[in-house]
Amino acid sequence: MSQHDPTSGEGNEDKRQRILEGALAAFAEKGFYNAKVSEIADEAEVADGTIYLYFENKDDLLISLFEDRMEWIINRLEHELSEVQGGIADRVRRFVELHFQLAVENPELAEFITVELRQSAKFIKEYDNPKFGDYLAILTGLIDEGQRNGTFDDTFDSRLVSRSMFGALDEELLELTLTETDANDVSRRAEQVSRMLLEGIMAGD
Amino acid sequence: MSQHDPTSGEGNEDKRQRILEGALAAFAEKGFYNAKVSEIADEAEVADGTIYLYFENKDDLLISLFEDRMEWIINRLEHELSEVQGGIADRVRRFVELHFQLAVENPELAEFITVELRQSAKFIKEYDNPKFGDYLAILTGLIDEGQRNGTFDDTFDSRLVSRSMFGALDEELLELTLTETDANDVSRRAEQVSRMLLEGIMAGD
Repeated sequence: MSQHDPTSGEGNEDKRQRILEGALAAFAEKGFYNAKVSEIADEAEVADGTIYLYFENKDDLLISLFEDRMEWIINRLEHELSEVQGGIADRVRRFVELHFQLAVENPELAEFITVELRQSAKFIKEYDNPKFGDYLAILTGLIDEGQRNGTFDDTFDSRLVSRSMFGALDEELLELTLTETDANDVSRRAEQVSRMLLEGIMAGD
Repeated sequence: MSQHDPTSGEGNEDKRQRILEGALAAFAEKGFYNAKVSEIADEAEVADGTIYLYFENKDDLLISLFEDRMEWIINRLEHELSEVQGGIADRVRRFVELHFQLAVENPELAEFITVELRQSAKFIKEYDNPKFGDYLAILTGLIDEGQRNGTFDDTFDSRLVSRSMFGALDEELLELTLTETDANDVSRRAEQVSRMLLEGIMAGD
């Protein structure tokens, strides 16, 4: 959470990013609980003590890493959604594709999100998680919009629907992360899952 | 995993169950990584060393606890599904309800499954997880049956559909576990989610 004030400009932000990269690598290799701060420092090529200038402890590192990467994911998602030609269903489809594609485009990050992140009880049980809220709000917003324009059935609770959809996508991302997969298979799965989810909420005909 | 042979009958099984109960309580209170074997022994009212007569280590305890409880969940699920009057969609609806009801009927077990269990990297990444396979196979079997009798759209991959559905249910169970909830709210959510999932796979009209 709290990020110690870098005071000398760009160099500090570079070092902070280097530590986050090191943490991502160390968590992927050892898991969150088994990764030692000294191993993260090794990966980041900084002294052990340097880590504590930027992060309070390993939980803080985990949460900062998550927030940093979610910001990237959300920016990319918003950009990609703005490029979609077509209706609201096409944007939901694109949302699903982008979620699944993380498994091939950035498998280390996909594993961090689906596996290591959940190893922190603090993350799951105590952390308020605004970035997850932001991510989910994009999907809820698409559903709200589709309900307003008559594409989607408005008897559904859009927040409940988007959270359930997120669960479906996330379970698939976990499976894609834990198994060998290729871009074709990812596309096939995205097509099937988005079709099922969209047909589930389409306004009756 | 390996379970050391109890050799003197009922007494050993009782003690084994007592240790599993103690582990469930200790994991719920401290989390998987922070719970010490000595705390599990305290909860179970056995000597520390006794635990190692039954379980190799804490991961073995976690997995044994999961397998034991899944057996109970699966037996109950199969019994409840066999009692359902009506068609295949009614059985899918009942599956969803039973999954959600765990949050009110056995919140400690719901939290174990949705939170503590995932803290073990070994469980997520290395363990083959036959009981999860059995649970998922029940849902896949319902979808296969509905596809054969023309209720469900057979252009869907039933295994992919059931895994995604499981993800949706599990995310909801996590949310129910982490928030205050009552039986009415659980029913409302189960109705919405099962309606969305069922409409998603219904054969076209």
